[in-house]
Amino acid sequence: MRGVAIIGCGMTKFGRREEDLVELLAEASLRAIEHAGVSDKDFDSVYVGNMMAGELVHQTAIASSLVDRINLAPAAAERVENGPASGASAFKNGLLAVASGAADLVLAAGGEKMTAADTDVITDLVSTMTHPIAEYVHGVTLPAMAAMLARLYMERYGLTERHLAMVAVKNHTNGMKNPYAHIQRLCTVEGAMSSGVIADPIRLYYACPISDGAAAVVLCPLEKAREFTDKPIRIAGFGHATDVQTLQEREDPAVLKSVKIASQQAFKMAKLTPKDIDVVELHDAFEILEIVQSEDAGFFEKGKGHLAVEKGVTALDGELPINPSGGLKAKGHPVGATGVAQITELVWQLRGEAGERQVKDPKRAFACNFGGFGNNTVIHILERAW
Amino acid sequence: MRGVAIIGCGMTKFGRREEDLVELLAEASLRAIEHAGVSDKDFDSVYVGNMMAGELVHQTAIASSLVDRINLAPAAAERVENGPASGASAFKNGLLAVASGAADLVLAAGGEKMTAADTDVITDLVSTMTHPIAEYVHGVTLPAMAAMLARLYMERYGLTERHLAMVAVKNHTNGMKNPYAHIQRLCTVEGAMSSGVIADPIRLYYACPISDGAAAVVLCPLEKAREFTDKPIRIAGFGHATDVQTLQEREDPAVLKSVKIASQQAFKMAKLTPKDIDVVELHDAFEILEIVQSEDAGFFEKGKGHLAVEKGVTALDGELPINPSGGLKAKGHPVGATGVAQITELVWQLRGEAGERQVKDPKRAFACNFGGFGNNTVIHILERAW
Repeated sequence: MRGVAIIGCGMTKFGRREEDLVELLAEASLRAIEHAGVSDKDFDSVYVGNMMAGELVHQTAIASSLVDRINLAPAAAERVENGPASGASAFKNGLLAVASGAADLVLAAGGEKMTAADTDVITDLVSTMTHPIAEYVHGVTLPAMAAMLARLYMERYGLTERHLAMVAVKNHTNGMKNPYAHIQRLCTVEGAMSSGVIADPIRLYYACPISDGAAAVVLCPLEKAREFTDKPIRIAGFGHATDVQTLQEREDPAVLKSVKIASQQAFKMAKLTPKDIDVVELHDAFEILEIVQSEDAGFFEKGKGHLAVEKGVTALDGELPINPSGGLKAKGHPVGATGVAQITELVWQLRGEAGERQVKDPKRAFACNFGGFGNNTVIHILERAW
Repeated sequence: MRGVAIIGCGMTKFGRREEDLVELLAEASLRAIEHAGVSDKDFDSVYVGNMMAGELVHQTAIASSLVDRINLAPAAAERVENGPASGASAFKNGLLAVASGAADLVLAAGGEKMTAADTDVITDLVSTMTHPIAEYVHGVTLPAMAAMLARLYMERYGLTERHLAMVAVKNHTNGMKNPYAHIQRLCTVEGAMSSGVIADPIRLYYACPISDGAAAVVLCPLEKAREFTDKPIRIAGFGHATDVQTLQEREDPAVLKSVKIASQQAFKMAKLTPKDIDVVELHDAFEILEIVQSEDAGFFEKGKGHLAVEKGVTALDGELPINPSGGLKAKGHPVGATGVAQITELVWQLRGEAGERQVKDPKRAFACNFGGFGNNTVIHILERAW
């Protein structure tokens, strides 16, 4: 497989945005193209991660539309949908296009426009990724699933609500330092613990907001990356795995098996172990997920993730900073954008361009984008190539 | 780039189906897996082409659902959407996954469930792939675009309505021999020409029906294909190109530039010319498109495609059979399925498994799947590898 590098990235501010979806994708893409210094180059292929454009903004074939809006025709273009992991799936397929030799310059973008819809509509639409007969028709929502997982962790591993609040506080603190973050507000453990209950024990502050936004990266063969930048980022490994769809059929509902398998694949490909990673972005659509993913990805022992949070290990100045961007909790979660935004943050971190939230001299980074409720996970491991 | 082969394929009957979308995808996939003789093997990756699952059947992340339904976890899984070219885009990305070395066994499926919705809803949803501001909001539908193209061809090249009817008659005749075809009914030139007008000069019989259905193929490295079948089909070339989105901005609205560029890419990669092709599947969502694509793909001189139809060149027993399956016109057009169904038909043709509609001893085949109204085209060239 041909080595692949990221040579530039960009994103829009996440939040409530007036622009239409393709405009947001265009804004992020043009920033990435400028960051990569390839404004005068011809792109071979464009991948767009998006979960719900047809449902939310009544537009299909948005990859064609993006290509048109920023004048990249005749580049190939397609949209990739993989629930909330649509962004990482788009990135992965862009990576494969370059790795195969079929493409030399690829744009991988992701975006979603959500805030114009009612929360009820969003909650319903996001739930359409659950099993249609075993789950969806019975009214199981994603917050309900997160609540069940949190409850199981409380019973089995001694997690307390305070730990969920601590993750939120950490991510809000990081988000305050991220000009692209949706939520720019500090929160306290007590404040989080007095917010409204969404699905017991999940409160408002243990869940991500509904956001608009987009992110994009530019990919090229590793061997050509130095023509464009002194700081190329190499994709050292990736993994992608599914699990059975319904929670009730999982071997152990407290284990995110797809995270486990995909992480193992990525580490194996990269010839690295979790100890080699310096900075991490996880998919904390709910704060319980950051804890469980941090274990199933191999960073902490099973059932001990919450203790790492308690000890500050995952803080910006800790041993293993998790979600320096603010995570989905504070940065926001425009669903299709998230996977690409995670990679964007990690590229900035590895290049030393993360401003106030810069982690100290990271060399290798890990991203986990989570589709479904743990039944489809895409992992990427990035490293400095200079 | 590592060589890639198709080792098996399958599809459902197209038409009005009672089964849900994932069930249709499962039926086609299991047939393809059985045809490939890999029922006991672990798949690395699953790609699903689909345009409108969220909008039409209120289900997202259907690739995860398919993997679950047919027990392929932990295979990677994602859905690819590229308007009506979603099927070929899914296939292409499956091909790249194998070509890159990332995957050794890939399922590429495509499907759509459409007949439960009103025709108005379908017409509107399909139109959401047009330019949101320059086209969609003004009520331009796909039949209207086809009508404008047909009219231009009449004025510029002497096309008559009778030629559109001839394409329909040919495709209905072929469809009668295809047990998977939605429409199993002969039609006459006079019958077609007396059907109702949809958008002048497009009549009902110059347009494809609305269908449910799915198709699937199994891909593996060419070097391993012989382990599974004596009749592997090699992907000799592919191309994928976009054009500006709005009709009004095209250099020449009578030229499907994305078809032209993508075809040239595919022929260049395959080191072949149009003369080397023995059987062709084109995207006749409207019969005018079969004529125009046959020219822009390079099979006939510009403005002469309708004369080839008139002379019987494109008939099943002609020099260059086009749409032996019955095409979208008679086989049906479950949108996301079409690109994969085209490839399925060509695999059967190349392997000599096409029954009554078998073209005489074809060695190389060409498929054109058309996204948007000519602004996103995916081409594949297949050939016997034995």
